Amino acid sequence: MNETTIKTKHPRAESLSIRKRLIQHYKSGIVADAGLFAHGRGEAFDYLLGEKTGDNALKAIKAAAAMLLNAEHPVISVNGNAAALVGKDIVELAQVTKSKIEVNLFYRSTKREIAIETLLSEAGAGKVLGVGKAASGRIHEIGSERRRVDPEGILVADVVMVPLEDGDRTEALAKMKKNVIAVDLNPLSRTAQFATVTIVDNIVRAMPALVRIAQKLKNEDRSRLQAIIADFSNKESLSEAIRLINRRLSQLAEKGTYLTPSQKGWT
Amino acid sequence: MNETTIKTKHPRAESLSIRKRLIQHYKSGIVADAGLFAHGRGEAFDYLLGEKTGDNALKAIKAAAAMLLNAEHPVISVNGNAAALVGKDIVELAQVTKSKIEVNLFYRSTKREIAIETLLSEAGAGKVLGVGKAASGRIHEIGSERRRVDPEGILVADVVMVPLEDGDRTEALAKMKKNVIAVDLNPLSRTAQFATVTIVDNIVRAMPALVRIAQKLKNEDRSRLQAIIADFSNKESLSEAIRLINRRLSQLAEKGTYLTPSQKGWT
Repeated sequence: MNETTIKTKHPRAESLSIRKRLIQHYKSGIVADAGLFAHGRGEAFDYLLGEKTGDNALKAIKAAAAMLLNAEHPVISVNGNAAALVGKDIVELAQVTKSKIEVNLFYRSTKREIAIETLLSEAGAGKVLGVGKAASGRIHEIGSERRRVDPEGILVADVVMVPLEDGDRTEALAKMKKNVIAVDLNPLSRTAQFATVTIVDNIVRAMPALVRIAQKLKNEDRSRLQAIIADFSNKESLSEAIRLINRRLSQLAEKGTYLTPSQKGWT
Repeated sequence: MNETTIKTKHPRAESLSIRKRLIQHYKSGIVADAGLFAHGRGEAFDYLLGEKTGDNALKAIKAAAAMLLNAEHPVISVNGNAAALVGKDIVELAQVTKSKIEVNLFYRSTKREIAIETLLSEAGAGKVLGVGKAASGRIHEIGSERRRVDPEGILVADVVMVPLEDGDRTEALAKMKKNVIAVDLNPLSRTAQFATVTIVDNIVRAMPALVRIAQKLKNEDRSRLQAIIADFSNKESLSEAIRLINRRLSQLAEKGTYLTPSQKGWT
């Protein structure tokens, strides 16, 4: 179809560029149907959050960085959208925090797993867990194919980062007493509420910020990292995110969100 | 890819079924890439609105029905998502209100226009405007291909219904002094704010309701219809929609949106 070329000065240039990338990865089999709809949902919440990483999100990002650095067996779980949007940042984060990377898809297929593994390898990843037969472990709280995990990865992890994850699986990991770090633009989702640390932010902003902050904290001693973790309350962070949305809704309603003809340069 | 079959008892059965339909129409060329993301955004707002057609939306639907019935040259504009989601309802609405139907795509291609025309014809539509060379009229406030309209349809319409429309085009139609009826789950969008009547509701609920209410009102005299129209304020309706979202956000935040293990039947 004949879609417009993306002019770099277009106010929505970045958003359109991200969509373009997702569609490319959808066509190449990396992103699932559900991933496109999920991205749209994220766009709506990001709009309501003001499309920037505020202090509230930064606090959560800092706690997440400390949690990964303090962990014994940290694992970063990767699905299609995460690989497509922030594959390179995931690889960097894994290196800085000495985390393992595991491919863990809601809609499994060996073909998709291999495609994602390839994408990550090309971005510099070392060993990628969870591909094909390697996902021989089982999380029994979850049904069917979604229970499959790598016995070297998520199954034995003490901290699992799940960017863009499903509520059922976040809940199951939490029930297994694992510390779960989620990135979710919807502070009301089950994922957001079951995670130990929820970063309510757009993953394309949050992941680079997380890499940067992890770099800063990586030589801190354990007691300092644990203090950062103890200082963070997910409940409060989520409540604050909801308050932010409420405030922004009211602001947008008051001033109106459209440009008047004169602002657009018309008479 | 191996997606789950949709069990009819699944709480998200309808939502999954709608997504499945959209993907099918995406693959057949009727729905554009942007349409999938837009649907996801709609899902987020619908979730925030409580996923039901409340009194506020019903008031707007009633005003819309009256406006179409009272019009001299009413036209219903159809894009890929509208055709895929509510093609049949659009045809019924056109019949009840004696409106014309015009295919009007953001991303034009004769192939897509014909596919949509076919879908509408199979749903019982009579003549469908705006296909191929028939879209020879121009709305000069809009750039490039998006300015093309049918000289027998939107160009000369006094009332245009634009389910799922773009802000630029809604604004252009409003500037041409046409009455615009929009369906938009985001009460803050430019479309919502430039339309004369905005139905803040999910199109799959709003369109059948609109057909039903138009059936009830179709024999009313003009003065009655005009009274219904005069009684409606889009500004107030949109403000109420935003209040509804804020209230629901607070409710959801208070009680939590997840089921506790005991509620799910676990020990």
